[in-house]
Amino acid sequence: MSPDSIRPIAHQERESRIRARLDSLTKPPGSLGRLEDLVLQLGLIQETETPQIGRKAMIVFCADHGVVEEGVSPYPSEVTRQMVANFRSGGAAINVLCRHAGIEPVIVDMGVGHPTRNFAREPAMTRAEAEQALDTGFAYAAQAEILGAGEMGIGNTTSAAALFSAFSGLDPLETAGRGTGLDSSGVMRKVEVIRRALALHEAHTDPIARLAALGGFEIAALTGLILGAASRRHLVMLDGFITGAAALVARAISPASLDYVVFSHCSAEKGHQKMLDFLNARPLLNLEMRLGEGTGAALGIGLLEAAVNLYREMATFQSAGVSTSILPAESPSGEAR
Amino acid sequence: MSPDSIRPIAHQERESRIRARLDSLTKPPGSLGRLEDLVLQLGLIQETETPQIGRKAMIVFCADHGVVEEGVSPYPSEVTRQMVANFRSGGAAINVLCRHAGIEPVIVDMGVGHPTRNFAREPAMTRAEAEQALDTGFAYAAQAEILGAGEMGIGNTTSAAALFSAFSGLDPLETAGRGTGLDSSGVMRKVEVIRRALALHEAHTDPIARLAALGGFEIAALTGLILGAASRRHLVMLDGFITGAAALVARAISPASLDYVVFSHCSAEKGHQKMLDFLNARPLLNLEMRLGEGTGAALGIGLLEAAVNLYREMATFQSAGVSTSILPAESPSGEAR
Repeated sequence: MSPDSIRPIAHQERESRIRARLDSLTKPPGSLGRLEDLVLQLGLIQETETPQIGRKAMIVFCADHGVVEEGVSPYPSEVTRQMVANFRSGGAAINVLCRHAGIEPVIVDMGVGHPTRNFAREPAMTRAEAEQALDTGFAYAAQAEILGAGEMGIGNTTSAAALFSAFSGLDPLETAGRGTGLDSSGVMRKVEVIRRALALHEAHTDPIARLAALGGFEIAALTGLILGAASRRHLVMLDGFITGAAALVARAISPASLDYVVFSHCSAEKGHQKMLDFLNARPLLNLEMRLGEGTGAALGIGLLEAAVNLYREMATFQSAGVSTSILPAESPSGEAR
Repeated sequence: MSPDSIRPIAHQERESRIRARLDSLTKPPGSLGRLEDLVLQLGLIQETETPQIGRKAMIVFCADHGVVEEGVSPYPSEVTRQMVANFRSGGAAINVLCRHAGIEPVIVDMGVGHPTRNFAREPAMTRAEAEQALDTGFAYAAQAEILGAGEMGIGNTTSAAALFSAFSGLDPLETAGRGTGLDSSGVMRKVEVIRRALALHEAHTDPIARLAALGGFEIAALTGLILGAASRRHLVMLDGFITGAAALVARAISPASLDYVVFSHCSAEKGHQKMLDFLNARPLLNLEMRLGEGTGAALGIGLLEAAVNLYREMATFQSAGVSTSILPAESPSGEAR
């Protein structure tokens, strides 16, 4: 893994040219809203005025968590393996969404049936294990120009909430939610488990040490995927709460890596809106989903593709013979046109 | 037009069966959020537990507005005709989005180059003209099982804001926005024009009379489309502020007609969020778009199709051999499972 190669995407001249092309299309300036922002981000990532979608892959990292023995999930760890089988036979939600959006699902076993250690008692991973998972994720960024980030792992909202609390200083009461469907007393148990873990591992403030202590193999791989995407100048569409926790670690390792990230949606998992606020992130969607797997990211890639299609295929005022504005209007960016 | 045939979609037993099927799919109960609501609504509309997408058409009603002579738009009326030509040659935003989502665009000239009267001085339409446009829209609901509602008409945010003020009692300062890109003084001019029109036509409180006084040919057709969709039990995906004004009129004629409506997005046009609140409507998307044409509706139909695909294609816990929850969790609807 070589995150040192990651550079911010800002490029004033290219941004001006992309905006000029957007404003030449047959629509009021700025009227495609967030879709215009997506085109601009992809153009800056790909270092071109004519960004393209290219290959699309959804990388779904799957792993088990030792902390499940604390009773933090209503589902047994066995479900991780069962869902991986479901992914491989094409019957899960992420398969359906990928099929219809032309996204290749890539299912990666990061430790299914071989859980991390219970981080309420000891570090979840050794530093070497965390680094190996980071490297694996980093390498998967080569799979496609447009990457979706997904995951499956019974217990991983506990790990993600613990990481969020560690990075933000927020009490687990603010970061831990129902996950796949805990009841209120289950959530309180989860909060207590995370509080205990935070006290146990508070000495680890280096991002990789913190990831090793509180994370999971799939969260480490997701972190590597973000860093790898940024290193290769590929766009990575994040899913929900778990992939957001990976973004926290990636930002701590390389702040510029988040220039390559799009946050697809705000999930219904309790801490996610707060996490997005902490990351200064504005998600594209809020459909009250809380399934994971990459399902929100798959929908987000659909919006990204719609944005690029609009940019590449719409007629211009000139080519279509449409009159431009007759009044000097204020644009959303405050410039007179 | 025969809106008397419109019935509410509620059906307790069918709803229970659709929810049971949703909960049998390999995901935590309720975790697909708003997508599950869409499946339920379509099933109740189609009177089946296995709703399907069928044909998809985007009906784009286009018309000109006499009120444009008051200087309420930065674009000349001529642009309506030019954009219709752009629609017919496939170069507009709505063409691009329809092409990639498999939606047939249907462009309907409701009065391009033949504007309504200037409603700041006299009623925009006679009652007979409004009824004819309602009938036309009503008939277009036969085009497809899934209808998108779009529009084009320079000046029509003024008409939509006037209708919203008339139905809600809100001052035009709350309902009128920048439209295609008015500056602040242009918006104030628009507000004054609408205030004058509301005073002139305040005697018209019957919904069709109000539509005739303040509406436009395309807004009347959109109203007819909503009523026609409800009458035929077709789902209609609305776009933004203009189609929302048509929903206000449709609700006043037949409250149950809105059971057949999905509000695709909240646009960046100033009054739209307030209009959605007034309609008790929760839009699917908020991408700060303000283009019209049906662009938000096209994206909304994409989400609807994703929802139906998930419902029809996902494996069940039983078929995939996945364990269900081991704890009695509280579901989002508050029932124990």
